[in-house]
Amino acid sequence: MERRNRAGPGGARIALLIQYDGTAFDGWQLQSGGRTVQGVIENALFTLTRQKARLTASGRTDSGVHALGQVAHFDCYGGIALERLCAGLNGIIERDAAVVNAYRVPDGFHARYDAVAREYTYLIYNHPQRSPFANRRAMWVRQPLDLGRMRESASYLLGQHDFRSFCKRTSAGGGTVRNIEKIGIHKTGGLIVINIRGNAFLHHMVRSIAGTLVAMDRERRPPRDMAAILERGDRDAGGATAPAWGLYLKKVEYDPPLSSMESAF
Amino acid sequence: MERRNRAGPGGARIALLIQYDGTAFDGWQLQSGGRTVQGVIENALFTLTRQKARLTASGRTDSGVHALGQVAHFDCYGGIALERLCAGLNGIIERDAAVVNAYRVPDGFHARYDAVAREYTYLIYNHPQRSPFANRRAMWVRQPLDLGRMRESASYLLGQHDFRSFCKRTSAGGGTVRNIEKIGIHKTGGLIVINIRGNAFLHHMVRSIAGTLVAMDRERRPPRDMAAILERGDRDAGGATAPAWGLYLKKVEYDPPLSSMESAF
Repeated sequence: MERRNRAGPGGARIALLIQYDGTAFDGWQLQSGGRTVQGVIENALFTLTRQKARLTASGRTDSGVHALGQVAHFDCYGGIALERLCAGLNGIIERDAAVVNAYRVPDGFHARYDAVAREYTYLIYNHPQRSPFANRRAMWVRQPLDLGRMRESASYLLGQHDFRSFCKRTSAGGGTVRNIEKIGIHKTGGLIVINIRGNAFLHHMVRSIAGTLVAMDRERRPPRDMAAILERGDRDAGGATAPAWGLYLKKVEYDPPLSSMESAF
Repeated sequence: MERRNRAGPGGARIALLIQYDGTAFDGWQLQSGGRTVQGVIENALFTLTRQKARLTASGRTDSGVHALGQVAHFDCYGGIALERLCAGLNGIIERDAAVVNAYRVPDGFHARYDAVAREYTYLIYNHPQRSPFANRRAMWVRQPLDLGRMRESASYLLGQHDFRSFCKRTSAGGGTVRNIEKIGIHKTGGLIVINIRGNAFLHHMVRSIAGTLVAMDRERRPPRDMAAILERGDRDAGGATAPAWGLYLKKVEYDPPLSSMESAF
């Protein structure tokens, strides 16, 4: 089947572990005109290997969204040592993206369809004055947020639900039922860190959840209102979508894990 | 005496707590042509209060060096609420600097001469591949560093010493004896965090210490060599000065502490 097309004769399928500061990128996906992570790394692959390769990511990230552990695969023809591949790519691509590791994966591996779990982090800088270090790296909320209330509100999202209320309207197809396995909320320094882990996420889902948690706390709405927001199935029921620059794709998991594969480091 | 000149009649001395990302600044101190933190905040003070004010910092920071807790005082004529002062300044100055708090200090207060301790942080990103998030925020060292050895080497610097070996050659006057009260080294994620606290620091002192700790570990020199480097009294005895972008002025302490003063937050 097409979506799982295997590396051709002599080709090796390789998965890259990629970090990027999303600030100066028009998101992941290649598009005419914009500077995208996919475009930058594909160009670097061409410079390094003299072969046109097409990267397939675990999922697209929107303009401004960051990644600590994006995974993308491609087929490499003509051998190159994995360590040299990482070092070579990092020597070419600019400082706001980096290839952290490279794995030799089975020929049928697919970065998107084989992902069994994804983890996102949403950062909120919660302080009366903005911080230069949180600029473009976290959402800034002046009013003190109540972590206990936020945790209680978030708990209604755990498990399998129809997350239509937390989905960008234009997205469609594939249904809106997803499973959130874990939501952790903690504070470190002035930063509130929201970690969300699930099987898959809808477009804008994590940002809608973060925005709703902030809005509910600001408006002193009782945590059980989160259940009603879910129930309504309407994006207008929740809070505004939180800004892209607070969102980080933290980790994508596979079974067997990438760490069990041959790798550069 | 001049250095402690008091606020004139009707004037109030105010200390600002300031953060900045040093990347796009030519350091703290006002100079012809360059964009400096002092210049940016003095201009904002003029815009806000229509009075020319002169800021005096706890110490200058070099081009590229960051601050989490720089302190600078000035005299304010005509009343302005401290909270409005912070919010007003932050509305004017660009995103890479921020006034985090403002304190009404005694008229004889001096940000530099009254400081009883200073704390700096030096960040090292210790990973085989560079990270976009450590770019311009930490020194990048590929080879794994040994924290135990670094801690042992650093322990020879504790207490009162002549730190001439860790001082930029061109600096002179005031002597080179300083007292380091504490050096903590820990690792979090891929970051090695060196915290150094002392009464005062020479020019390039923290960066020279960080560079020497890295060089000694790379060259597998025994930790007791640090004592010999101190003893030599020669900048060539140690390692290269570590880059400015890994250095953060974390905290400046006063007695009584600023936190005991009237403040905006």
